[in-house]
Amino acid sequence: MSVLIGNIGELTTNDGERGRLHEAALVLDGPRIAWVGPSAQAPAADEFVDAEGRAVLPGWVDAHTHLVFAGDRTSEFEARMAGQAYAAGGINATVQATRAASDEVLGANLARLVAEARRGGTTTIETKTGYGLTTEHEVRSARIAAEHADIVTFLGAHVVPAGEDPARYLDLVTGPMLDAVAPLVGGVDVFCETGAFGEADAARILRAAAAHGLPTRVHGNQLGHGPGVRLAVEYGALSVDHLGFLTDGDIEALAGSWAGWDAGAGPRGTVATVLPACDLSTRMPLAPARRLADAGVVLAIASNCNPGTSFTTSMGFCVATAVLQMGLTVQEAVRAATLGGAITLGAHTDGWMDARGARQPRVGVVSVGARADLQILRAPSVTHLAYRPGVPLTDAVWRAGIRIV
Amino acid sequence: MSVLIGNIGELTTNDGERGRLHEAALVLDGPRIAWVGPSAQAPAADEFVDAEGRAVLPGWVDAHTHLVFAGDRTSEFEARMAGQAYAAGGINATVQATRAASDEVLGANLARLVAEARRGGTTTIETKTGYGLTTEHEVRSARIAAEHADIVTFLGAHVVPAGEDPARYLDLVTGPMLDAVAPLVGGVDVFCETGAFGEADAARILRAAAAHGLPTRVHGNQLGHGPGVRLAVEYGALSVDHLGFLTDGDIEALAGSWAGWDAGAGPRGTVATVLPACDLSTRMPLAPARRLADAGVVLAIASNCNPGTSFTTSMGFCVATAVLQMGLTVQEAVRAATLGGAITLGAHTDGWMDARGARQPRVGVVSVGARADLQILRAPSVTHLAYRPGVPLTDAVWRAGIRIV
Repeated sequence: MSVLIGNIGELTTNDGERGRLHEAALVLDGPRIAWVGPSAQAPAADEFVDAEGRAVLPGWVDAHTHLVFAGDRTSEFEARMAGQAYAAGGINATVQATRAASDEVLGANLARLVAEARRGGTTTIETKTGYGLTTEHEVRSARIAAEHADIVTFLGAHVVPAGEDPARYLDLVTGPMLDAVAPLVGGVDVFCETGAFGEADAARILRAAAAHGLPTRVHGNQLGHGPGVRLAVEYGALSVDHLGFLTDGDIEALAGSWAGWDAGAGPRGTVATVLPACDLSTRMPLAPARRLADAGVVLAIASNCNPGTSFTTSMGFCVATAVLQMGLTVQEAVRAATLGGAITLGAHTDGWMDARGARQPRVGVVSVGARADLQILRAPSVTHLAYRPGVPLTDAVWRAGIRIV
Repeated sequence: MSVLIGNIGELTTNDGERGRLHEAALVLDGPRIAWVGPSAQAPAADEFVDAEGRAVLPGWVDAHTHLVFAGDRTSEFEARMAGQAYAAGGINATVQATRAASDEVLGANLARLVAEARRGGTTTIETKTGYGLTTEHEVRSARIAAEHADIVTFLGAHVVPAGEDPARYLDLVTGPMLDAVAPLVGGVDVFCETGAFGEADAARILRAAAAHGLPTRVHGNQLGHGPGVRLAVEYGALSVDHLGFLTDGDIEALAGSWAGWDAGAGPRGTVATVLPACDLSTRMPLAPARRLADAGVVLAIASNCNPGTSFTTSMGFCVATAVLQMGLTVQEAVRAATLGGAITLGAHTDGWMDARGARQPRVGVVSVGARADLQILRAPSVTHLAYRPGVPLTDAVWRAGIRIV
């Protein structure tokens, strides 16, 4: 069945030659976009949706979340707001609660958060393991994650679990645990930070992932200057995330990784994934997104939804913060929260494999053949996402051609 | 008809001796709250609503908005985000569009924004004139405002309209214009700032208001250090709003105005109304809410919804920003956005007169006899308002006992 969305006031395509269209229309046919062009030239379709002059853009691609968890860290958040500094150790509280929870509880919690994200316009969502931290519990987390998320990342290297010997845990996470989880996940992540994994250990994890043919991500430079960015670039990670503390050398390294990239093909670099809600929620410096963009680094914006440091699914809030406080233009921020996220996940080209093993059309763009992942805003332009912060603007959402909001 | 809301996980009452209750219930009877207490002791009622362990709090009291306008300032916002500084002159663009709009257009725009605010949990809303700036257009704005808002404030002294002689305009705004508008409004406001009205002119406006028996408010210390706060305290204004630039003397003066106040009665001071969304949207310093609270100043948080500097109705966003970035605790921020707003408007005691001339029960508190203005959150505690920024948490809203969301 085909659907014509007509009378679009502003259409953000993220499609190089096209950019933003006005008085536009598009046609969905099955899970894909079948036609994009001027409203006046729109072909017939089985169903017509009148966008009434409002803005249409790709669904959000949220490339960094931690949604397989149980328990609550409200009181840790309250303590932080009362002046207590964030430290990675709080993760162990969630590990304990997650291990104790049934599959049903974990699955229901995850499903609820994914549904909330979708109501807010998110159509592709990555999520990580990392609150299990035993082979059994990491496998369980990956399995549950794959039932609801689009991409699952193994984050056994989140922290060394409480009471565990660091050297022994590193052997486990790069050995039997990785062996067991690898068939279930699309990538491997490591939290490279004081209090989590240092440079040598993080490098060993990245090498172990590569040996399994898995792409990598790094949590880096969140709590201080550190080796995360350098390592991510050196090992060709898909992305390095957080980035509150960067040297000029870090920015140059990231920019260098994109030299010669021709947007959609060719050797790609390491995406700088900024997490504005996390920066605010931990009272850490906002990542220097403006400087990264000016240097030519490809950016993604993600929610980092997790119960400790950033308990929001709202990509709209993240985009607004990136504009109001990190100096990005609305167009840059919207691109980072859609196509940028897709590039981070390797989902910007056709044929990426989702968490259930199905091949998928590219996401993050509005172009013929792309997956029909779209949102209509209650606003005439994407600028309203930052001009009207906090107002829920997502009015209608399609995912793979199916209207879900 | 009475309604019992039972099984409330956390009830924010703002009621001195009561504070926050757990496992609580309350009964609405007509427009008022008839009973508050432990869930186990709740009386019978005609209807039962199960709060399912979630948080209940008073509806937001948004004490500062400018909603009678036409036109759009998206491009001014975009220019500001690209680095252009905010100046008060942009107001004239809205004045021109507002004068050109029909009553129907102004009323529909206002009604749409009030409805959006109510969906977000706002149950009492002040709005200002100030985009007419002729006697005819200010009277029209006040009349249209009174159809939809709870309190209407005269802001003829917004800016000197383009092409108008300042001295002549001051004569008008303190003379015939004020005479014509006074019967239609609940107060008078003045924008005391470089580019708007200076100290002597602002003082003259405050005296003219007093001569009409109207309470006053001041926009002050928004764009730089200025006389706004001092004047507001000197003239006993209900509130002074913005406050990005304060000296220690300003904070002392505000604190001094509250000496001897006994919460609910006695001689009141001047409320410090902070506008977090406006501070962010104009890239101005955030008002020092923490310092003000520590000094003992009564705070309000408002949206300042207007098309130029803060185009949001989201009190939830303002509360989250006040906690994440201005150093208030969630309890302080929630109180400022409910009871604080009510004190600003003089609506914290029974018998305040609304914009349609009706006497109203007190708002901003959950106590027997108060107006039944309530919201249920999709969360177990108000902490989630800051812990989960951007997620629309308001699930159900009652206003004067009528369920509106």
